[in-house]
Amino acid sequence: MSTETAAYPVTPRNRVKRMHERGSYDRESVHAILDAAMLCHVAYVIDGQPYATPTLFWRRGDTLYWHGSSASRMLRHLKAGTPACLTVAHLDGLVLARSGFNHSANYRSAMCFGTARLVEDPAEKIEAMRDVVDRFYPDRSALLRPITPQEAKATTIVAMPIDEAAAKVRAKGVGDDEADFALPIWAGVIPVTTVLGPAETCHRLVAGVEKPETLAIFPEGGRLDAALRTGQQRYEDA
Amino acid sequence: MSTETAAYPVTPRNRVKRMHERGSYDRESVHAILDAAMLCHVAYVIDGQPYATPTLFWRRGDTLYWHGSSASRMLRHLKAGTPACLTVAHLDGLVLARSGFNHSANYRSAMCFGTARLVEDPAEKIEAMRDVVDRFYPDRSALLRPITPQEAKATTIVAMPIDEAAAKVRAKGVGDDEADFALPIWAGVIPVTTVLGPAETCHRLVAGVEKPETLAIFPEGGRLDAALRTGQQRYEDA
Repeated sequence: MSTETAAYPVTPRNRVKRMHERGSYDRESVHAILDAAMLCHVAYVIDGQPYATPTLFWRRGDTLYWHGSSASRMLRHLKAGTPACLTVAHLDGLVLARSGFNHSANYRSAMCFGTARLVEDPAEKIEAMRDVVDRFYPDRSALLRPITPQEAKATTIVAMPIDEAAAKVRAKGVGDDEADFALPIWAGVIPVTTVLGPAETCHRLVAGVEKPETLAIFPEGGRLDAALRTGQQRYEDA
Repeated sequence: MSTETAAYPVTPRNRVKRMHERGSYDRESVHAILDAAMLCHVAYVIDGQPYATPTLFWRRGDTLYWHGSSASRMLRHLKAGTPACLTVAHLDGLVLARSGFNHSANYRSAMCFGTARLVEDPAEKIEAMRDVVDRFYPDRSALLRPITPQEAKATTIVAMPIDEAAAKVRAKGVGDDEADFALPIWAGVIPVTTVLGPAETCHRLVAGVEKPETLAIFPEGGRLDAALRTGQQRYEDA
């Protein structure tokens, strides 16, 4: 897709203001950060009050999807949709400098702006309910007990095409003032990673059922972000 | 402090609506989730547009502090402050069920509501600039090159007393429908933890400088959330 290689437009809404040298607007950078995450924070305004709601989300092309939860009541009455901001942030390291001012963190973040709408078309909703499984666990939905009409009714899914987005990344060592490097103060980076533990099989599992081979993308001790990016690739290739 | 043991008031703003059995409002539960994190997401509204901004934050009693960044321009003009929501979420596990509907995640989240204001008093600001170091790295600010007036001027810090808050936690195994447990489908939990890597000493370190003993709260292979809670305890005890 040609849009995959293009950059998002830059407007006052998504322009990176502070530390602007850390910002970028190309789809590849933004998608890499989104696809490495399962958890995002969505900001909405309800009656003038902003909410930052943590939720699972996934990306299909240039559209983001998530479960409705707190905003669904509002969205049901807003057919035209509502402005929203979906943000992902990965903490990659603690940066300890020789001055308080230069203490920092290594991170990768992406902020996406658009208009959120409720997914109401039944076919789109069923497809999204399969996608939320298959995007994280390749080909899993076909193995499961099918979705019931009651479940589809009880599920609210929100979609937001990305109108604008920005990625912001810090990935380097200590950035002290030149004169401060001579001070006898310990400085360095403590890396942070989010990793997978050993799978805990449900204690009510039917005897003889094996873990599907497709879940090998989540190896014990592996990085969550890498597993999720692999899952997204399988989802796009399927 | 007696307020430490009390619960936050429950209003339409912070009441946990979806899966309300996972919610709680007591300070101890909320603080435990906040204190296990360095990264939060703050939601603001600027000209009708919501923003979910990732940022480092810390807690002092019932007040949350963070660096100003995108909201500082707005806050400078809003002396009375602006409504905000600061959210922390920890992903603890991927929950794979026998139906798509019962797939879930284990997590701990806290949403805090209040009115954000710019810290403008010079003494409060200098204290906050020391706290942002000492809250994460016990007693570290005293070892550092002192804060300069230019640095204080270039730093914007936002404070928000917590008016209302809610914690929401899922920490259990697969929650399948009773009839589904008999299906020959693999189900289980894949735990997720955020861990510390080996400290990478700055390559320009003055010869002979040792890593301070207080940084032993960040051991290689240790959990970030546990280290941060220990740091908060030291900060409160200091």
